[in-house]
Amino acid sequence: METKRPLILITNDDGIQSGGIEHLTRIAVGLGDVVVVAPDNAQSGKSSALTVNSPLYIRKYEPIDGAQRFSVNGTPVDCVKLAMYAVLDRKPDLILSGINHGSNAAVNNIYSGTMGAAMEGCILGIPSIGYSLLDHSPKADFNPLTSFITDITTKILRHGLPEGICLNINFPAHCTPSGIKTVRAAKGRWTEEYADFTSPHGIPFYWLTGKFHNDEPDNPETDEYWLSRQYGTIVPIHPDQTATDKISEIAKILE
Amino acid sequence: METKRPLILITNDDGIQSGGIEHLTRIAVGLGDVVVVAPDNAQSGKSSALTVNSPLYIRKYEPIDGAQRFSVNGTPVDCVKLAMYAVLDRKPDLILSGINHGSNAAVNNIYSGTMGAAMEGCILGIPSIGYSLLDHSPKADFNPLTSFITDITTKILRHGLPEGICLNINFPAHCTPSGIKTVRAAKGRWTEEYADFTSPHGIPFYWLTGKFHNDEPDNPETDEYWLSRQYGTIVPIHPDQTATDKISEIAKILE
Repeated sequence: METKRPLILITNDDGIQSGGIEHLTRIAVGLGDVVVVAPDNAQSGKSSALTVNSPLYIRKYEPIDGAQRFSVNGTPVDCVKLAMYAVLDRKPDLILSGINHGSNAAVNNIYSGTMGAAMEGCILGIPSIGYSLLDHSPKADFNPLTSFITDITTKILRHGLPEGICLNINFPAHCTPSGIKTVRAAKGRWTEEYADFTSPHGIPFYWLTGKFHNDEPDNPETDEYWLSRQYGTIVPIHPDQTATDKISEIAKILE
Repeated sequence: METKRPLILITNDDGIQSGGIEHLTRIAVGLGDVVVVAPDNAQSGKSSALTVNSPLYIRKYEPIDGAQRFSVNGTPVDCVKLAMYAVLDRKPDLILSGINHGSNAAVNNIYSGTMGAAMEGCILGIPSIGYSLLDHSPKADFNPLTSFITDITTKILRHGLPEGICLNINFPAHCTPSGIKTVRAAKGRWTEEYADFTSPHGIPFYWLTGKFHNDEPDNPETDEYWLSRQYGTIVPIHPDQTATDKISEIAKILE
């Protein structure tokens, strides 16, 4: 009796040519049939953005280790939506996004294109995971993550995920993680956010930069705490942002 | 003794020239000192996207009813961040985003630039509200909303909002709302998402369209239920998407 191999859709926000998605693809081909549909260029910080007002094209790339590969001239969420509509012949069993070059811990989840794609998969009812390494370098070394990603991906293929939940998984840079912790996102925000310039024509302009301010650096319930101690972190994420526990309080003020 | 008027920052995702932001500005000048910092063109569907890889410029516009106005060549979140960094001389007491031309109810919250801006305000510790009207027309009639928006904005200026919470407020089109309900986002997703085309050069391309599928149209706990019955809806939103109630379940599977 033949058992069908699971179908795994892979995307990211650094673009189809990045090192992180290639590493993830090579891991995933050992676990299922893999199709890559990823942005044709860098889409960092694109959150759950959609391309509303311009056309999308699909371009075919050479396979890697038997994984079919396609690019889309859009955002990570566009890639997931268009993969479902025009590329895949059945609903995938799993969506993997990444491996991102850079952190998506703490408040970064909300700006992250990597996590935008994972959340889109979750909205569509597909178990979805975003993987990130805290190293922005295009030459980041993803090898220390291989056994962790293989193990987690295998388990989620077997167990699935609770309804309405996807996973934001981050790994520390330049080390083999000491282990993995399931925690919540640290509270904080970006501060001192822009570099100031003046153009050759005398016009001021601004470029995003900034430092993350962690409100609770000593709290072991948080992702940032463990990442700074060389652990990987798993944060369960729900795309539905309703604060159900605040409905009656707000109703009292406003109805 | 002089009481300082509250400072209100206004932004949107339809762009500084849209009818909805002008209507909101004219309401807000009755309630405080108003500064508008909004995208220089349409930014619908931009979610919490950031401009990472290009410069941002600020351009001054003529005031409306005493409200200072500026545009930014970026996303709604860029507008909030850059307003804080380079335009405002103090932290605003309130951020208003909108009035959006079109629905941000249900799952639309996650794709919405209007709500991206409101969530950014919330992350920065500022009470923030996104207002939307279920009418995409550039000539949408916002007059039936005036008394509701005035009342809600006045109350939030007085009471503030719970920490980590902002509001996603939607109004039905072509009517005076029968009242307002504080509820949760309806569960659902967009389906049949693309229109297919072939270019004059024979290349297929795709354009986002789609229909919202509501999983629970008869559930009075949800925003879509009340909007379809001519009520306005308030959904409390938390930008932090950690599913804290699922941490131990996920830890059992993956640690």
